[in-house]
Amino acid sequence: MLNIGLLGCGRIGQVHARTILRLSGARVAAVSDAVPAAAEALAAETGASVMSSEALIDTGDADAVVIGTPTDTHYDLIHAAAAAGKAIFCEKPVDMSADRIRDCIRAVEAAGVPFMTAFNRRFDPGFADLQARLAAGEIGEPELITILSRDPAPPPISYIRSSGGIFRDMMIHDLDMARFLLGEEPVQVFAVGSALVNPEIGAAGDVDTAAVTLTTASGKICQISNSRRAVYGYDQRVEVHGAKGLLRASNILENNVEAATETGFRTAPARYFFLERYEAAYRAEMASFVDAVTNGSAMTPDIHDGLRAQMLADAATQSWQEGVAVVLA
Amino acid sequence: MLNIGLLGCGRIGQVHARTILRLSGARVAAVSDAVPAAAEALAAETGASVMSSEALIDTGDADAVVIGTPTDTHYDLIHAAAAAGKAIFCEKPVDMSADRIRDCIRAVEAAGVPFMTAFNRRFDPGFADLQARLAAGEIGEPELITILSRDPAPPPISYIRSSGGIFRDMMIHDLDMARFLLGEEPVQVFAVGSALVNPEIGAAGDVDTAAVTLTTASGKICQISNSRRAVYGYDQRVEVHGAKGLLRASNILENNVEAATETGFRTAPARYFFLERYEAAYRAEMASFVDAVTNGSAMTPDIHDGLRAQMLADAATQSWQEGVAVVLA
Amino acid sequence: MLNIGLLGCGRIGQVHARTILRLSGARVAAVSDAVPAAAEALAAETGASVMSSEALIDTGDADAVVIGTPTDTHYDLIHAAAAAGKAIFCEKPVDMSADRIRDCIRAVEAAGVPFMTAFNRRFDPGFADLQARLAAGEIGEPELITILSRDPAPPPISYIRSSGGIFRDMMIHDLDMARFLLGEEPVQVFAVGSALVNPEIGAAGDVDTAAVTLTTASGKICQISNSRRAVYGYDQRVEVHGAKGLLRASNILENNVEAATETGFRTAPARYFFLERYEAAYRAEMASFVDAVTNGSAMTPDIHDGLRAQMLADAATQSWQEGVAVVLA
Amino acid sequence: MLNIGLLGCGRIGQVHARTILRLSGARVAAVSDAVPAAAEALAAETGASVMSSEALIDTGDADAVVIGTPTDTHYDLIHAAAAAGKAIFCEKPVDMSADRIRDCIRAVEAAGVPFMTAFNRRFDPGFADLQARLAAGEIGEPELITILSRDPAPPPISYIRSSGGIFRDMMIHDLDMARFLLGEEPVQVFAVGSALVNPEIGAAGDVDTAAVTLTTASGKICQISNSRRAVYGYDQRVEVHGAKGLLRASNILENNVEAATETGFRTAPARYFFLERYEAAYRAEMASFVDAVTNGSAMTPDIHDGLRAQMLADAATQSWQEGVAVVLA
Repeated sequence: MLNIGLLGCGRIGQVHARTILRLSGARVAAVSDAVPAAAEALAAETGASVMSSEALIDTGDADAVVIGTPTDTHYDLIHAAAAAGKAIFCEKPVDMSADRIRDCIRAVEAAGVPFMTAFNRRFDPGFADLQARLAAGEIGEPELITILSRDPAPPPISYIRSSGGIFRDMMIHDLDMARFLLGEEPVQVFAVGSALVNPEIGAAGDVDTAAVTLTTASGKICQISNSRRAVYGYDQRVEVHGAKGLLRASNILENNVEAATETGFRTAPARYFFLERYEAAYRAEMASFVDAVTNGSAMTPDIHDGLRAQMLADAATQSWQEGVAVVLA
Repeated sequence: MLNIGLLGCGRIGQVHARTILRLSGARVAAVSDAVPAAAEALAAETGASVMSSEALIDTGDADAVVIGTPTDTHYDLIHAAAAAGKAIFCEKPVDMSADRIRDCIRAVEAAGVPFMTAFNRRFDPGFADLQARLAAGEIGEPELITILSRDPAPPPISYIRSSGGIFRDMMIHDLDMARFLLGEEPVQVFAVGSALVNPEIGAAGDVDTAAVTLTTASGKICQISNSRRAVYGYDQRVEVHGAKGLLRASNILENNVEAATETGFRTAPARYFFLERYEAAYRAEMASFVDAVTNGSAMTPDIHDGLRAQMLADAATQSWQEGVAVVLA
Repeated sequence: MLNIGLLGCGRIGQVHARTILRLSGARVAAVSDAVPAAAEALAAETGASVMSSEALIDTGDADAVVIGTPTDTHYDLIHAAAAAGKAIFCEKPVDMSADRIRDCIRAVEAAGVPFMTAFNRRFDPGFADLQARLAAGEIGEPELITILSRDPAPPPISYIRSSGGIFRDMMIHDLDMARFLLGEEPVQVFAVGSALVNPEIGAAGDVDTAAVTLTTASGKICQISNSRRAVYGYDQRVEVHGAKGLLRASNILENNVEAATETGFRTAPARYFFLERYEAAYRAEMASFVDAVTNGSAMTPDIHDGLRAQMLADAATQSWQEGVAVVLA
Repeated sequence: MLNIGLLGCGRIGQVHARTILRLSGARVAAVSDAVPAAAEALAAETGASVMSSEALIDTGDADAVVIGTPTDTHYDLIHAAAAAGKAIFCEKPVDMSADRIRDCIRAVEAAGVPFMTAFNRRFDPGFADLQARLAAGEIGEPELITILSRDPAPPPISYIRSSGGIFRDMMIHDLDMARFLLGEEPVQVFAVGSALVNPEIGAAGDVDTAAVTLTTASGKICQISNSRRAVYGYDQRVEVHGAKGLLRASNILENNVEAATETGFRTAPARYFFLERYEAAYRAEMASFVDAVTNGSAMTPDIHDGLRAQMLADAATQSWQEGVAVVLA
């Protein structure tokens, strides 16, 4: 039984807490949050103790920590948890600065603690099946990948102002997915973007509609597109072409009912809410973390994956701002 | 070049005439119709001569005849054409009476002329592909077949009154399809029916919604359903289950465009009009007739297929009227 | 918090116990099973007490009982639980004899206890959505319904011998679904069946491939087909036609990945295992029971639904055996 | 009846000739080809006269010319036909040089003759329906467009050497489609490409896998991807996102049969051959030309569309070669 300390009891912390409740090999031992009421509510639901984050990291009650606090607190918590010898599960992004992530890597590696970066989509059953079949050679080497990712609706402008921008806050998932599937590091990034959904997003210095092209040293190509709006649900698709064919993961609809009327055949929209869409992914992700800690096996995606995705997001942001293709070292 | 005489220049005669125009191995040599203007219009379009049906059958200009006249004229035309040694392509039903079809069989066999009964759906690319794969053993022997066939809208009541009823006029296509796929004669027929689309159809002594169950000696089962209404287009589907899986032919839609909006994902309706839906089938059917006459190869479906389908339609009608399962000899 | 006593700790009992664990408004208070080890294992998993069935029914610890024992024990347990004033959730079939179910109805109604018959498919999100939209008039009154239900593989012959036959053990779900959707009682049943999957099933006096036609007083028609085999997964489909169009629920596949290769486009098989296929249905079903008991609202499907489905299964069995359409009172 | 002179009797010339045969408002009056046997064969099939290209342009027998000769002959033929006052239907590309196309525009406009550039995909029923609905505002203004276009197999290396490269010979169709759908000129082009299908294509100075990003002045984005290989058939898809949803055109499969076996559900590959895939488009395209000439209505796509697509292809080629985003005047 792995004892987990939960740092941050907001929306994503609650997701992880409820996921852990359904796992047989782990339990929520302790929770902390800057807002005491949030910690207490989640403690009541999970049977965990409420602690300060310092106490939670110091206590012998937690073998591992789940970091779901605001991004700017990750750096210190990672350093403290690493120093305390805890296994670490950290929400993306690890940090907004690639250099600070490099600091975290040093701390984590010095302490020798396991570290998982929470790119949950790798654990989605569809994307995971697709990647496994691709890696097994079902269609040969990937040559051209299309990743399409559209949120059902834009976040508040206040969020946009502090998120680091669409490439760092939203497309980072797709950039990680590209790395997961390409099997090779992108060496060039080209990005364009527009504020078409909401001009206030543009006024805040960001875009809401964006497209990125990645290329690798061997010439593999990946096209990503993002939008902050999709009225027909949360649109999440991946398509990979290789010499022997294509593999693609389609959207998950709200239900399996179809109607046919004078206007044609109609199915339900795609699942709208990210928790519902990625419920299975969150479960598989946490199960993978618990298994890896328990069995001492390798973690993936690890902290280096967190760094590479951030570097790609930084490069995409720069490419969009400067209108040039950015070459990665 | 096969010279074809066309008996009957109504809707189906025009379909066949235009189909022949596009075939390289045949031409419309002569046409006849009880309505002179109809014959003249089609003659102008095809370059054929206008003749009386007697002259058309007697003339040496036609090697084969296509009979598309009203059903009650088929009997005499078949006898005359057989006596004149013409290859015969005859619209379904061959005749409304199984006994009279048996007379026709005797005349055709005595004359030794080729005879094709025009069950066009056997030549639909989808149904033909399905049947070929089934016959090749792709899913093993058929065990359970579902045939669903719905017209977009009911015919006029005047047509209903003289059509012989839904089982003889509409379901006969599905009964032939069942025989085509089962590879074995049905030995029992059970039918139910209701007038749900239009009560006037019920008042005319017919039904507009019907379901039939066929069983064969070895225990294969086929379920057929028919309706005179399908607001989403002409609904024509077949599904066959065997030990190794299923084969099915889906509807053909008006186009390949899909829209996604707040209400979900929507495609076009099914093709609405039978000529559009079965355009490829009409072409393949006539090409098959021309080829078989030209090469002296066997015809299928032949006049015996015409008889068996009529016997099944008669049995379904009786079963519906009497509420009992009817056993075929 | 509703305290539930679980009678029967076999496969279906375990499903219900694990479902209750995930509901916030109920808990498993006590469990019983003829095999003590089975009861103890489930008690350990749920934190329940182990009791004899008599003690469980007598104890004040349980407000409601879930009956998941062998069918021939239902009768006595229902009578005892009703006498003890417990709300009752009972697996299908309530009993193999319609007359004995009528006895149970008298006992349940005399005691005034709530009773749910566990036709789980009514709670499947797809079928429930379809029924709700049908009831709301989206396509008008149902006219013709097709229900297709195929198990992935046949049960052991030993099960076949005591199951009451395919119509009572397997098709009963589809007969209940037909009633759920038709909104009107079937008045005539016609059935055919064959042993095509396994001749031993035929030797045991049953069939493994079956088709039934139901008709209602107003002329609505329902076609059901069943097979004990579907190599491509658990095939569970419903299609309803009305004046304004069709509604259908398609299969749920193992995942949302599609491959395209030289042989075409290929998706995953349908979910194979009934627990996986109907996981959401089991959860919604138990939640509905707990809600109805807690709020004193009406139960559906109730014990009368259990009786009507059994009567239809009996009629189908008789129709198959005698080769005639059976009219229900 | 429009009399058409056909310049060039190769593969595409034959397509157009056979298409004209099926139109009621036009006929092939004369044909010419540098290879006399090719002209004679097509003359025999169509009933046309064989002439030299000069005679064909001079003769009063042809009201319009269809130019299907090699690209480097277009320039002179366009000038001659314009001078002779013929309506002109010209295969794409109009010329390999944008400046020479500008010369042609001057000649065509000076002569005041109608001119259609043969971007056949605009006439594909699916793409045409999609564009019409987009233009009608069904999903609002287009914001992000994805065009995916993959040939089933690469052309011979000899073709690659003289084609002008993938952006000019293959992607030009997609660049025109982008313009057709965007409703606004692209102002920036970024391209990447690799030789992944066949290294000989790379050795010949071209790529076989390519991706382009277009942006317009108002910020609309279009992603195009191309490959010279698609083992599952000719892959031709378009997807457009707007504020109110998406519109997409899917592939057209070889048939409508689906099989389900232990490995899942499988449909046919996409139609493999461009003539089969775009048969309806070629017919609608020629019908549109004949109608516009006959009725004196505006032609679309016209010669300016031919120029703009060529300019985009040139810009994409430059972007790929130089690794920079190219801004169009």
